[in-house]
Amino acid sequence: MPTQALGWGTRTPGQTLEPIRFERRDLRPDDVAIRITYAGICHSDLHHCRGDWGTPRLPAIPGHEIVGEVTAVGPEVTRVKVGDTVAVGTIVDSCLQCRECKDGWEQFCLEGATYTYGHPDRHDGSVTCGGYSDHIITREHFVFGLPANLDPARAAPLLCAGITSWSPLRQYKEHVAPGKQVAVAGIGGLGHLGVKFAAALGAEVTAITTSAAKAEEAQRLGAHHVLVSTDKEQMKAARSKFDFILDTIPVGHDVQPYLGLLRRAGRMVIVGAIEPLPPIHGGLLISNNRAIGGSGVGGVPETVEMLDFCAEHQLYPEVETIRMDEVNHAWERMEKGDVRYRFVIDMSTLEPTA
Amino acid sequence: MPTQALGWGTRTPGQTLEPIRFERRDLRPDDVAIRITYAGICHSDLHHCRGDWGTPRLPAIPGHEIVGEVTAVGPEVTRVKVGDTVAVGTIVDSCLQCRECKDGWEQFCLEGATYTYGHPDRHDGSVTCGGYSDHIITREHFVFGLPANLDPARAAPLLCAGITSWSPLRQYKEHVAPGKQVAVAGIGGLGHLGVKFAAALGAEVTAITTSAAKAEEAQRLGAHHVLVSTDKEQMKAARSKFDFILDTIPVGHDVQPYLGLLRRAGRMVIVGAIEPLPPIHGGLLISNNRAIGGSGVGGVPETVEMLDFCAEHQLYPEVETIRMDEVNHAWERMEKGDVRYRFVIDMSTLEPTA
Repeated sequence: MPTQALGWGTRTPGQTLEPIRFERRDLRPDDVAIRITYAGICHSDLHHCRGDWGTPRLPAIPGHEIVGEVTAVGPEVTRVKVGDTVAVGTIVDSCLQCRECKDGWEQFCLEGATYTYGHPDRHDGSVTCGGYSDHIITREHFVFGLPANLDPARAAPLLCAGITSWSPLRQYKEHVAPGKQVAVAGIGGLGHLGVKFAAALGAEVTAITTSAAKAEEAQRLGAHHVLVSTDKEQMKAARSKFDFILDTIPVGHDVQPYLGLLRRAGRMVIVGAIEPLPPIHGGLLISNNRAIGGSGVGGVPETVEMLDFCAEHQLYPEVETIRMDEVNHAWERMEKGDVRYRFVIDMSTLEPTA
Repeated sequence: MPTQALGWGTRTPGQTLEPIRFERRDLRPDDVAIRITYAGICHSDLHHCRGDWGTPRLPAIPGHEIVGEVTAVGPEVTRVKVGDTVAVGTIVDSCLQCRECKDGWEQFCLEGATYTYGHPDRHDGSVTCGGYSDHIITREHFVFGLPANLDPARAAPLLCAGITSWSPLRQYKEHVAPGKQVAVAGIGGLGHLGVKFAAALGAEVTAITTSAAKAEEAQRLGAHHVLVSTDKEQMKAARSKFDFILDTIPVGHDVQPYLGLLRRAGRMVIVGAIEPLPPIHGGLLISNNRAIGGSGVGGVPETVEMLDFCAEHQLYPEVETIRMDEVNHAWERMEKGDVRYRFVIDMSTLEPTA
């Protein structure tokens, strides 16, 4: 029997968010029911609800950086129990049978992964609803137990911004290690975690930013150096310097000035620019045997690895905690880049409305 | 005291090649003098002499796929002796002091490598002249002893076409190995060697070609499968199939149809398209964690490794041997793609003219 849920979302693409009552499915045998305590705000939430990526299924309840407490489990659930503090990220289901799922890359499930919101459930076809809500029902495979010493109030952004920055640093682990020069371009929600991760992994880290004003802050985050991309002399001096560049810039952009910064066999990975990139000169890749790749969110094993790493290193996103009814204002600020570096909604402020 | 040399080259960019007498430097202490027996013809020779890459220094004597016999050595030479069969490739000098040279990536010497023709010598500033000539004087570091069981008459194209195909297959050795799916796009001078190398390295090899007519020939070269890139159904069926694609297409082209063929963590490397590539959609890289890179010619250690591998596997380029005075006709045929797969000039046909 479905349960009643309360969330914030939209019934009309582009409109401000408002409280919405909707239904969650009843527990399946391998499901976990979670009372949501914190929900991170991702720029994707806004794109989705505004219809930037196609008309969303309605009502749209966004949120895929979820932390909460287990309130019930199905009979087949073995890894978590009622009362556990857990997290859910961008993916809530996949076939678990194909080669990618079996290798722990569920995000690239050959049948297609099921996203946390706005996506048809693979069993009953109902539309998934995200973390801006009081509770969620999720297949156990995609529920992460939070390490005991990881602060739940700051952990939520790890589930999207975190794993999206972490995964490429681990895929290219030979390029991101002690003795390696690593740069992070774009110091926002993803990039600020990229700086922290790369530094904690032992690399010498350079934050690449358009603004000299961010230098001090980048160093506070753990960057050893700052490179101002609008300063031609600085960019010239950094040519062929880096083993790895994590490019978190969230829109299509000319990657060539960054490619020129890669030393021999250097690698650059984009995680944000899901758009056409302006032409890249083949000679820039051939010279120095460079490569540019992309990386999506990580799979389950990488997410577990990241959560353990954050607990061990007490590494957290920088968060600004808000009330549920501040979400529309937070979205406005996020659009203007006025957030350092991730908003988290304290879901205890989700008051049932009359 | 400089020695007199006879070669074929041009005194005017774009004109047909003709016999030209010029001077070679006297032996330096670390130099090797080589009587050239075979010279391969590379498309770069034509681009250089025609001025496609800037006005060449004149006279232009091309050729950077060189095989010959040692006729004299300087007092510091230790690895080769008079009478040895040796080879010279695209690079004849570098600083040998920088990190790249020390690591065996002389082609990316931080001071700039010295190319085999049309480039100022780093010591006396004279212009280097290539292998379409009776002899060459080259620093020992860049002279390769040919393995005893490697046929000199067919080895010359290994020094550019060969090493340019070999190097990326070795840089990405985890992607090019038994059990891996490797594709080679463009089955010409470089690509036909790519197919042979990848198959000899144990991968399952697919030749990607625009022409169904090449299928049988590709299989004769060692390809296990042929994929016709103009056949939409075939391309669709091959989506997310390959671990690695070696793209030898020699002009700028839309790489996106090929990128879509890469499975998770697949890599594609261009070696020929030294031109701007049409826009790549970032989502195509982010999906499946793909990457596209470039690769230039290899350094000394990789070249030695390749020559040993070819000797061990008796792996050769497919060559058509011509007389020196057939070179202009051969260039015309090369421009039309009418060569399977590399011309080699038998330098014993270089007759002194009156």
